[in-house]
Amino acid sequence: MEHGTQDAGGHVGYAGDKSEIVKRLKRAEGQVRGIQRMVEDDTYCIDVLTQVSAATKALETVALQLLDDHLAHCVAEAAREGGDVADAKIREASAAIARLVRS
Amino acid sequence: MEHGTQDAGGHVGYAGDKSEIVKRLKRAEGQVRGIQRMVEDDTYCIDVLTQVSAATKALETVALQLLDDHLAHCVAEAAREGGDVADAKIREASAAIARLVRS
Amino acid sequence: MEHGTQDAGGHVGYAGDKSEIVKRLKRAEGQVRGIQRMVEDDTYCIDVLTQVSAATKALETVALQLLDDHLAHCVAEAAREGGDVADAKIREASAAIARLVRS
Amino acid sequence: MEHGTQDAGGHVGYAGDKSEIVKRLKRAEGQVRGIQRMVEDDTYCIDVLTQVSAATKALETVALQLLDDHLAHCVAEAAREGGDVADAKIREASAAIARLVRS
Repeated sequence: MEHGTQDAGGHVGYAGDKSEIVKRLKRAEGQVRGIQRMVEDDTYCIDVLTQVSAATKALETVALQLLDDHLAHCVAEAAREGGDVADAKIREASAAIARLVRS
Repeated sequence: MEHGTQDAGGHVGYAGDKSEIVKRLKRAEGQVRGIQRMVEDDTYCIDVLTQVSAATKALETVALQLLDDHLAHCVAEAAREGGDVADAKIREASAAIARLVRS
Repeated sequence: MEHGTQDAGGHVGYAGDKSEIVKRLKRAEGQVRGIQRMVEDDTYCIDVLTQVSAATKALETVALQLLDDHLAHCVAEAAREGGDVADAKIREASAAIARLVRS
Repeated sequence: MEHGTQDAGGHVGYAGDKSEIVKRLKRAEGQVRGIQRMVEDDTYCIDVLTQVSAATKALETVALQLLDDHLAHCVAEAAREGGDVADAKIREASAAIARLVRS
């Protein structure tokens, strides 16, 4: 339950994109580590800022992929079942979208 | 209200919130007009900027409400029907969310 | 132009760009009014959202222009004078940038 | 030149905040690594998204601090010198702000 079966259609919306998402996150982690080195080496502020913007965009791309998967699987499934569960799922998704738009 | 059929379960997701959304948009329009006057009166840059940020936030709030309504009605309905239409609706909603996050 | 003294070196950073900024704001106001009509006409949610994103971007462009003018004139002038006034101007500009990034 | 002298008033705007910025970046790196583990453990989409929003905000805070330091030191210094260098520095800072607002 914890593993394996998930990639073959588990309970999380991003199950099918899991390895791609992990790869993107590893790259974002590398970007953040690279920014640390830039700061330690006294790299010019604007060049550091450019890399911070790039890392922020990389995380946003991950968020949008997670959200797309969540809508396509979890929310769609809840909508098919209907009722209170469906309403709760949509409210929850809207709240996550709001956090993303405002972050 | 006037478009009875719309408010009583029309074809747009925001039918039930229509008058509230129009009210918010009127307020945002008034804010933008107020910013014009501030600029014409040579108001200090930072005070103008504060109002531009406020108007931007007001539009974002409208966008988040439209999106929530769209998920709760149009996307949920398509999900219940399933098939290609459901997939297309979710892809379309994800693209709208991406535009919003990146704007 | 009409307010000669302002455009020819007024006290606001955007004095030289005033007519362009007002023009942009008028266009943004028209966009917001257009969105109201779309909502009143029960336009499809996603099409309304696309226009809200466009109006938000238009306001952001105005904000970035105001900020650029403010840095180039007010902040630069304060920096040349130095001292506490310079520090206060920079803190104030940073706060406005933060509001913009988070809005 | 590579180190030490920088922290005692070097050529980068963030020299005085260097250790704090590195600390923040290390924390952001840890957050991104934590998100990877969440994804590998099939954590619920919305909980992953909440952490992605938090990491994005952490990077934004670093960007705003770098920008503030850059304005307070590099841009202010260039403004005091005046001329083409000052203009170029301000244009460069405005471009970095635009990238940040749009990311």
